[in-house]
Amino acid sequence: MDPFNVAGLRLGTTCAGVKYPDRRDLVVIEAAPGTRAAAVFTRNAFCAAPVIVARTHLATASPRYLLINTGNANAGTGRQGLVDAEATCQALAERTGCRPEEVLPFSTGVIGEPLPLFRLVTGLPGALAALRPEGWIEAAHGIMTTDTRPKWASRRLSVAGREVTVTGIAKGAGMICPDMATMLAFVATDAEVEPAVLQNILVGAVADSFNAITVDGDTSTNDALVLLATGQSGAVIPAADADCEHFTAAVNEVCSELAQAIVRDGEGATKFITIRVEGGRDVAECRQVAYTIAHSPLVKTAFFASDPNWGRILAAVGRAGLAELAIDQVSIHLDEVCIVRAGGRAPEYTEAQGQAVMARPEITIRVELGRGAAAARIWTTDLSFDYVRINAEYRT
Amino acid sequence: MDPFNVAGLRLGTTCAGVKYPDRRDLVVIEAAPGTRAAAVFTRNAFCAAPVIVARTHLATASPRYLLINTGNANAGTGRQGLVDAEATCQALAERTGCRPEEVLPFSTGVIGEPLPLFRLVTGLPGALAALRPEGWIEAAHGIMTTDTRPKWASRRLSVAGREVTVTGIAKGAGMICPDMATMLAFVATDAEVEPAVLQNILVGAVADSFNAITVDGDTSTNDALVLLATGQSGAVIPAADADCEHFTAAVNEVCSELAQAIVRDGEGATKFITIRVEGGRDVAECRQVAYTIAHSPLVKTAFFASDPNWGRILAAVGRAGLAELAIDQVSIHLDEVCIVRAGGRAPEYTEAQGQAVMARPEITIRVELGRGAAAARIWTTDLSFDYVRINAEYRT
Repeated sequence: MDPFNVAGLRLGTTCAGVKYPDRRDLVVIEAAPGTRAAAVFTRNAFCAAPVIVARTHLATASPRYLLINTGNANAGTGRQGLVDAEATCQALAERTGCRPEEVLPFSTGVIGEPLPLFRLVTGLPGALAALRPEGWIEAAHGIMTTDTRPKWASRRLSVAGREVTVTGIAKGAGMICPDMATMLAFVATDAEVEPAVLQNILVGAVADSFNAITVDGDTSTNDALVLLATGQSGAVIPAADADCEHFTAAVNEVCSELAQAIVRDGEGATKFITIRVEGGRDVAECRQVAYTIAHSPLVKTAFFASDPNWGRILAAVGRAGLAELAIDQVSIHLDEVCIVRAGGRAPEYTEAQGQAVMARPEITIRVELGRGAAAARIWTTDLSFDYVRINAEYRT
Repeated sequence: MDPFNVAGLRLGTTCAGVKYPDRRDLVVIEAAPGTRAAAVFTRNAFCAAPVIVARTHLATASPRYLLINTGNANAGTGRQGLVDAEATCQALAERTGCRPEEVLPFSTGVIGEPLPLFRLVTGLPGALAALRPEGWIEAAHGIMTTDTRPKWASRRLSVAGREVTVTGIAKGAGMICPDMATMLAFVATDAEVEPAVLQNILVGAVADSFNAITVDGDTSTNDALVLLATGQSGAVIPAADADCEHFTAAVNEVCSELAQAIVRDGEGATKFITIRVEGGRDVAECRQVAYTIAHSPLVKTAFFASDPNWGRILAAVGRAGLAELAIDQVSIHLDEVCIVRAGGRAPEYTEAQGQAVMARPEITIRVELGRGAAAARIWTTDLSFDYVRINAEYRT
């Protein structure tokens, strides 16, 4: 289904030749005056120059333009990287008549190479000329790197008799273990939302979507998620009531759909794996167990091989670092099949049952810890030959 | 160089058909009466049945026999696994006239399948008939699983005019991220050492050897390291003096050589990578950074590709979770080449320099954090197609 347009928002995409010729690699998103913004960024200490600049600009002004390039992350580039990121904002401001701090820059691609400033700046007129409300799919293509397909999600709802839209795009396939946000995602609505409410909604939506996925455990230097609210629909979202709940649910759904799309397009992924850990003392330890399973190369290669080598899941639970874990309270299911009960192989389990589950393209691992009422859920992928190929060949 | 024999120790290896026919998979190590033992075991909560039994036996008696099988880990096997492990000790005790608690069992192989008790027990006479002091290399073969080559190390030194030998064997290639010990390693000396001293020496030797390596970050359910001291050389190692230091150094060297051999034989490994993290506030944070780099699939695949994609190392340092990391104090070297200084690409760095280093089979990554005097060093491997192949095919 094509994404719905968001009143007050236009998107323009062009080929600026940042790294490759004839590849859509520069996107401008224009927001109407009065647009409110909320954002979350990577917690990687080596965060990229555009992340630092975007944070600073957001603190001083409401954004009118988002400027996104692929092919170069502008990370690990020191002071020159900051100067370059500021220069791209300055150039776009000159061309559009806004102030530089009303521009938020975002970059993704190779870390550690100087930003090709000339190509970015000379690509701006093309991106501005392409601005249109229907530009979402083009933009979703324009932010891809090792992604194999564009990612968007869109919802419509009614708020106080007015139609409200929430639409978003995201990119990401590798270096995916977001810690605040994902690689890059841009979500917009035409509702009017106070900045504090908008930020609350965003932080809530991130927790179970972008902050609950992992492909390879590598948190990027460039993760950023922006939620724009243009207010052009005329619908106002109050701080807390049924309308706010409906609107929040729509934002949650868009974020979840985008986060799942990133995992499904994970580098070399052949399986979509949901990991639920239940019965924990708190959510943190449930997440700890879930991520230990998700990051185990042995678990991931077993899923790639469709091999019900469930001992590897059990070993991952055991090394997750939970104090006083009573293993005789632990059970593990693969979809509907109980493989471990009371800490050992379930008596009724058969290899044939395991093989039947593992042959599926989507599988849920459910771990019951039996020591509390907390639970957590994350999404991840397997580890395939293609993951190694993609990351051994990338850059070359 | 062949390993030196250890007076008072005999080793016997046989093919018991535990999993495959005609494969050396059962090893018995016999220690002379009066032998002292020290041991460390996995911290994985799902530790295998033989680990539980070996710990219990060690607490009540000095071992006369170690009984080691491959092809089956006897882990995730619940109560039956404990009964089976005890039964193998019982059978060996009957056959040799010792008490069951004087036998320590060790298993390695697939997790979650019942131990083939009949095959193990019927294999015992063959292993006992093969016992001889020169049996080290046979035994090193007998404990291999996905290892491509046997691993041993041996040192001789003089203590108070007497010749003392330290010889050890180890196995391990995957599921390697020891947390107390490695998959399986057995080290013996003919020196006489008090149990408390022996345990101190062992714990010290483990810290910078088996507990400083990782192949895939997966801590095994079966890790165990045993150090036996037969006392048959007549040399007594005192609690603390120059002789104790020499002896400790020999044990350290044997453990380091075995640990390195495990990494060099890591599943699919094409590179041997040393990671040194210096200038940290404490050793724990240095190890945290080192393991974050070592476990990054993106760093590992870049090394496999011999691609100086150093931005991935920088991103791993940045996500290692160090509070208040001042990135402008961080520098990174690949061997002698400085790639990052003051948090950004070193001005004099050239891609050609990076490629020259990455082409080497052994590479040291040195990270300077610039915030203290602590340091740590670990050894690891790259991530190759063969790692995925081995772990996708294993068991099938």
